[in-house]
Amino acid sequence: MDIGTALALSAPLSVGIAAFGCGIGLGLAVKGALEAIGRQPEASGKILTNMIIGAALIESLTIYTLIVFFSVLSRLG
Amino acid sequence: MDIGTALALSAPLSVGIAAFGCGIGLGLAVKGALEAIGRQPEASGKILTNMIIGAALIESLTIYTLIVFFSVLSRLG
Amino acid sequence: MDIGTALALSAPLSVGIAAFGCGIGLGLAVKGALEAIGRQPEASGKILTNMIIGAALIESLTIYTLIVFFSVLSRLG
Amino acid sequence: MDIGTALALSAPLSVGIAAFGCGIGLGLAVKGALEAIGRQPEASGKILTNMIIGAALIESLTIYTLIVFFSVLSRLG
Amino acid sequence: MDIGTALALSAPLSVGIAAFGCGIGLGLAVKGALEAIGRQPEASGKILTNMIIGAALIESLTIYTLIVFFSVLSRLG
Amino acid sequence: MDIGTALALSAPLSVGIAAFGCGIGLGLAVKGALEAIGRQPEASGKILTNMIIGAALIESLTIYTLIVFFSVLSRLG
Amino acid sequence: MDIGTALALSAPLSVGIAAFGCGIGLGLAVKGALEAIGRQPEASGKILTNMIIGAALIESLTIYTLIVFFSVLSRLG
Amino acid sequence: MDIGTALALSAPLSVGIAAFGCGIGLGLAVKGALEAIGRQPEASGKILTNMIIGAALIESLTIYTLIVFFSVLSRLG
Amino acid sequence: MDIGTALALSAPLSVGIAAFGCGIGLGLAVKGALEAIGRQPEASGKILTNMIIGAALIESLTIYTLIVFFSVLSRLG
Amino acid sequence: MDIGTALALSAPLSVGIAAFGCGIGLGLAVKGALEAIGRQPEASGKILTNMIIGAALIESLTIYTLIVFFSVLSRLG
Amino acid sequence: MDIGTALALSAPLSVGIAAFGCGIGLGLAVKGALEAIGRQPEASGKILTNMIIGAALIESLTIYTLIVFFSVLSRLG
Amino acid sequence: MDIGTALALSAPLSVGIAAFGCGIGLGLAVKGALEAIGRQPEASGKILTNMIIGAALIESLTIYTLIVFFSVLSRLG
Amino acid sequence: MDIGTALALSAPLSVGIAAFGCGIGLGLAVKGALEAIGRQPEASGKILTNMIIGAALIESLTIYTLIVFFSVLSRLG
Amino acid sequence: MDIGTALALSAPLSVGIAAFGCGIGLGLAVKGALEAIGRQPEASGKILTNMIIGAALIESLTIYTLIVFFSVLSRLG
Repeated sequence: MDIGTALALSAPLSVGIAAFGCGIGLGLAVKGALEAIGRQPEASGKILTNMIIGAALIESLTIYTLIVFFSVLSRLG
Repeated sequence: MDIGTALALSAPLSVGIAAFGCGIGLGLAVKGALEAIGRQPEASGKILTNMIIGAALIESLTIYTLIVFFSVLSRLG
Repeated sequence: MDIGTALALSAPLSVGIAAFGCGIGLGLAVKGALEAIGRQPEASGKILTNMIIGAALIESLTIYTLIVFFSVLSRLG
Repeated sequence: MDIGTALALSAPLSVGIAAFGCGIGLGLAVKGALEAIGRQPEASGKILTNMIIGAALIESLTIYTLIVFFSVLSRLG
Repeated sequence: MDIGTALALSAPLSVGIAAFGCGIGLGLAVKGALEAIGRQPEASGKILTNMIIGAALIESLTIYTLIVFFSVLSRLG
Repeated sequence: MDIGTALALSAPLSVGIAAFGCGIGLGLAVKGALEAIGRQPEASGKILTNMIIGAALIESLTIYTLIVFFSVLSRLG
Repeated sequence: MDIGTALALSAPLSVGIAAFGCGIGLGLAVKGALEAIGRQPEASGKILTNMIIGAALIESLTIYTLIVFFSVLSRLG
Repeated sequence: MDIGTALALSAPLSVGIAAFGCGIGLGLAVKGALEAIGRQPEASGKILTNMIIGAALIESLTIYTLIVFFSVLSRLG
Repeated sequence: MDIGTALALSAPLSVGIAAFGCGIGLGLAVKGALEAIGRQPEASGKILTNMIIGAALIESLTIYTLIVFFSVLSRLG
Repeated sequence: MDIGTALALSAPLSVGIAAFGCGIGLGLAVKGALEAIGRQPEASGKILTNMIIGAALIESLTIYTLIVFFSVLSRLG
Repeated sequence: MDIGTALALSAPLSVGIAAFGCGIGLGLAVKGALEAIGRQPEASGKILTNMIIGAALIESLTIYTLIVFFSVLSRLG
Repeated sequence: MDIGTALALSAPLSVGIAAFGCGIGLGLAVKGALEAIGRQPEASGKILTNMIIGAALIESLTIYTLIVFFSVLSRLG
Repeated sequence: MDIGTALALSAPLSVGIAAFGCGIGLGLAVKGALEAIGRQPEASGKILTNMIIGAALIESLTIYTLIVFFSVLSRLG
Repeated sequence: MDIGTALALSAPLSVGIAAFGCGIGLGLAVKGALEAIGRQPEASGKILTNMIIGAALIESLTIYTLIVFFSVLSRLG
């Protein structure tokens, strides 16, 4: 197995594993937001804003692995 | 094992692993939404809107791995 | 192992892994819906509508892997 | 390992893995339904209808993997 | 490893994995039923009917893998 | 590894895996039954009947894998 | 690896895996029984009877794998 | 790997795996007993008797694997 | 790998795996005992006696694997 | 396998594994923040500030693995 | 792999695995003790005595694996 | 596999595994902090200070693995 | 693989696995101590003393594996 | 694989695994501290002191594996 193969094996899996964890984490966050709205519907604006900030932070973790994947893909030429 | 094989092995699995985690996360989110509606049926409009925004964010994580898969597939020619 | 074999190994497994996670997630969602109906039977219409929207979103995650599988199968010729 | 072998290895396992997850998910859903009936026996009609809709959605996930299995089996000739 | 061996390896395991998940799921469902009867003994008829419908749905998931196993066994001749 | 070996490897393991899951599931069911009796001792007859129906359903899942094992054993001659 | 070796590898493991799951399940059942007695000591006779019926059902799952083991052992002769 | 080696590999592991599960299960049972005594110290006699019956049932699961081990050891001669 | 090696590989691991499970189980039991004493300090004598009986039962599971280990070690001679 | 291959295999996976854990951790943190806002909407400013400080700390853990990845990538030249 | 190597591989791992489980179990026990003291500080003497008895029982499980390790090490000479 | 390769394989993975665990741990800590602020907004200063001390302690665990990685990288030259 | 290699592979891993479990266990213990102090600050002296005794017991489990490691290292010379 | 390689493979992984477990454990401890402060802000001094003592104990577990790593690294020369 050479370097290219190793990169080709690990980089796409990395995106999948990151999306796995972030999917569960984002689900927990959205669940918390919806339960908070269900308890205080009048605060739904604030909660939505904060949920989206939190979601952006979580999404960024998967984006990092996408950056890894594309920098690997460009290297494989 | 060459680069193409490694990509062909890891990219489809990546979609499956991402869909696994996002499926659980989305289930948690939908559960939270339905319980919130069950507690405050009159707020179901707001909750539905927020649930769909949250679901779109979670779906995007799996879409990232689809992008990885199709950019790999096009490379494999 | 060549590219075709790698695709043939990972694509069907991907459908199974996605269906695994989505099955649990959908179960959580349906459970939440039924408990909400058990608490407020008069809101069962709204809850059913929302459950089906949520379920459609979860099902779409498995559909993505089906798309992966059939685009792989057509490639294997 | 050639393409046929890889498909023959992964497709039946895929059905099993999907049935594993859907079995747990369906168990959660049925549990939720029975607890809801235990709390409100007079709403058992509505709950049964919704449980069957939810169960059909979960079963469909395993059916997808059956489709994968039989399209693989027909290909193996 | 040829196609027959791969099928012979994965199909019986598939039945076991499905029975594993369905066993846990069915246990959750039966537990829910018995707790519901313990809370409302007079509704035990309705609950039993619903439990058996739910159990039939869960059993069907394992039956699918049995179908897979026997269609594989007949193919192996 | 030929077909007989593959069957001989996977079929007994399948019984064990199924018994693993069903053992946990049946434990949950029996626990639910005993807690229900502890709460309503006068309903112990109904609960026992339902527990045995539920247990029979769970046992059947392991019986399926026994059928798989013995149809494999008879084939191995 | 021939058929005998495969059977010799998988059958004893199957007993262990089944005993693992049944041990946890039986522990849950006994725990439920003891907690029920702790709440209603006067019903301990009924609870003990039901616990033993439940335990017998769980033990039977491990006995199945013992049957598998001894039918394999006699075949290896 | 011949039959003796396979038996020698799987039989001792089987005892360990069974003891693992039964250790956790027995811990749950003893915990339930001690909590029940903590709630009703005057019923400690009944609870102790039932705990020992339950523990004997759980121990028997590990004994089964010991039987497997010693029947294997005698065969290896 | 011959029979001696297989025994030498699996027997010590078996002790470790058993001690793993029994350690957790014993921890649960001791925790239950200490919480029961914290709730009813005057019953600490009874609880200590029962805890030691329970602990002896759990220890015996690990002792079984020690017996397995030493009967293997004497065989390896 | 030489040093380059080993680095190429482990470094991208490391980013994925870190993003997996941080995704779940960040999801827990965001969930806690949204539930806190749902309970005290007037304190949402303070909570948002603290959430972002906490998120920055969690993100830094994934950034560390990115540093590892890029220092590896630059070394592979 | 000969007998000495197999023993050298499995015996140290066995100590680690046992310490893993006992560490968690002991943590649960100490936690239970500290919570009990937090609820009834005047009973801290009794609780400490019982905690140390329980801890000694848990430690003994890891000591068993140490015995295994040193009897293996002396055999390897 | 020589020493360099082994170090190159294990050191980056070590950073990822550490970041995985610390990510979850830090998420739990931040969640606890935000819930504490949600309950007592006036104590947010103290809580923030303590959260940052705790986070620094957790971060240090991942830093240790970074030290390991860079001392390995410098050795690989 | 000879005896030295096997010892060199398993002994350091053993320390890591033990520290993993003891880290979680010690975290549970410290958490219990801090919650107990939070409920009864005036008993913090007693609780601290007991926590340190408990922690010393847990640390000793990891020390055992360190003893294993150093007795292995001295043997490898 | 010789002794040096085995040490080089297992020692860095050991640090990562230890940091994984200690990260989760430390997170639990910090969470407990912050919740205790949220409940009794006036006791934050005592709680902080105890948290740092507890954290030092947990950190020491990871330090042990660092000692293992550096004594291995110095041996590899």
